[in-house]
Amino acid sequence: MAKPLLQLALDQLDTESALRSLDGLAPHVDIIEAGTLLCCSAGMDAVRRIRARYPRHIMVVDLKTADAGTEMANMAFDAGADWMTVICAAPLATLEAAHRVAQRHDGEIQVELFGHWTLEQAREWRALGVRQAIYHRGRDAAAKGQGWGEDDLRRLRELAAIGIEPSVTGGLSAADLPLFAGIPVRAFIAGRALYGAPDPVAAAAAFHAAIDAGWGK
Amino acid sequence: MAKPLLQLALDQLDTESALRSLDGLAPHVDIIEAGTLLCCSAGMDAVRRIRARYPRHIMVVDLKTADAGTEMANMAFDAGADWMTVICAAPLATLEAAHRVAQRHDGEIQVELFGHWTLEQAREWRALGVRQAIYHRGRDAAAKGQGWGEDDLRRLRELAAIGIEPSVTGGLSAADLPLFAGIPVRAFIAGRALYGAPDPVAAAAAFHAAIDAGWGK
Repeated sequence: MAKPLLQLALDQLDTESALRSLDGLAPHVDIIEAGTLLCCSAGMDAVRRIRARYPRHIMVVDLKTADAGTEMANMAFDAGADWMTVICAAPLATLEAAHRVAQRHDGEIQVELFGHWTLEQAREWRALGVRQAIYHRGRDAAAKGQGWGEDDLRRLRELAAIGIEPSVTGGLSAADLPLFAGIPVRAFIAGRALYGAPDPVAAAAAFHAAIDAGWGK
Repeated sequence: MAKPLLQLALDQLDTESALRSLDGLAPHVDIIEAGTLLCCSAGMDAVRRIRARYPRHIMVVDLKTADAGTEMANMAFDAGADWMTVICAAPLATLEAAHRVAQRHDGEIQVELFGHWTLEQAREWRALGVRQAIYHRGRDAAAKGQGWGEDDLRRLRELAAIGIEPSVTGGLSAADLPLFAGIPVRAFIAGRALYGAPDPVAAAAAFHAAIDAGWGK
């Protein structure tokens, strides 16, 4: 089982703040995510500036695309995305269109799992060639105290079993990671738990230690 | 029954192009929408520039918010939105958080209906105080030839019956409007059917004529 990667989600409202957080953490993370808030606030300029500054990291552009798959994907991949997100509520035609653009850029689409979705849908995504999903405990759901449970773990295992690699996000701390041991998680995604920590580099090190402990060095 | 309004969706990738389309059409539409593509591409700067130029139109910021309802709504309403969209797949907590911010700005949230949703959910939205939804035939679904049908009309009537005013969008032309006669549509939303028409002002006039014919002068 491949070792999960560590993804830094940048959810600031302006590119300068995002870059400040990123500069300290970039050597300590595998994937940089231009978060939805940052993209909606600063536009693709934020993505282009992150890409120019860190050309070798995997970069996710988290647009949660619901429609206009071709146009959204062209925009994101032209700006420098390696991976782009499409929300699970999008029509299959939107996912297919976005996936086609991603392939032309040697990129990938990640289906962002929010609200209602079924394993039958996930099989349709896989049949299109999509290989990644993001398993989400929403910020607002987390704030309401909704925790990680056996149901989450079962659904993650089901996704993995049909060939969809899940990344996991939503108020994660390093202490949560042992919960997911044995599941082939593609990446653990954290934002403020990293850049908002008193010592961001130590926070990233704690995530890596938990990953090493659960999935091997 | 109030007469439906006409909403211009700006889905360009840059603010200059959007403003060029808007300048010719603004006197002929009731609502200006900063579309998802425009917001993701140009950020809230696009919204601020539209607001500054057209302070009296109703302005929709179409973010299809799925998470971080407070932060997304603060961003959109601070930039000048009157209404903001939240996708139906969002957790109820996200909708509630966004609605709370909207109320502080005398604004409104519109639930954007994509993929799976139920009338029971719509009743929950209404119970929160949300009064609007956007009924969507996605761009990609439309491109695949998926038309408007009796099922769409039934669902629109069901939404209206529980106090959710639907706006209607998705490859609409003026010729489609008689289909919706008798339904209390809040707004008909068109983008390229208006600004991409050979004569945009004539295209807007055709929409208004169809609205007058179906819903009275």
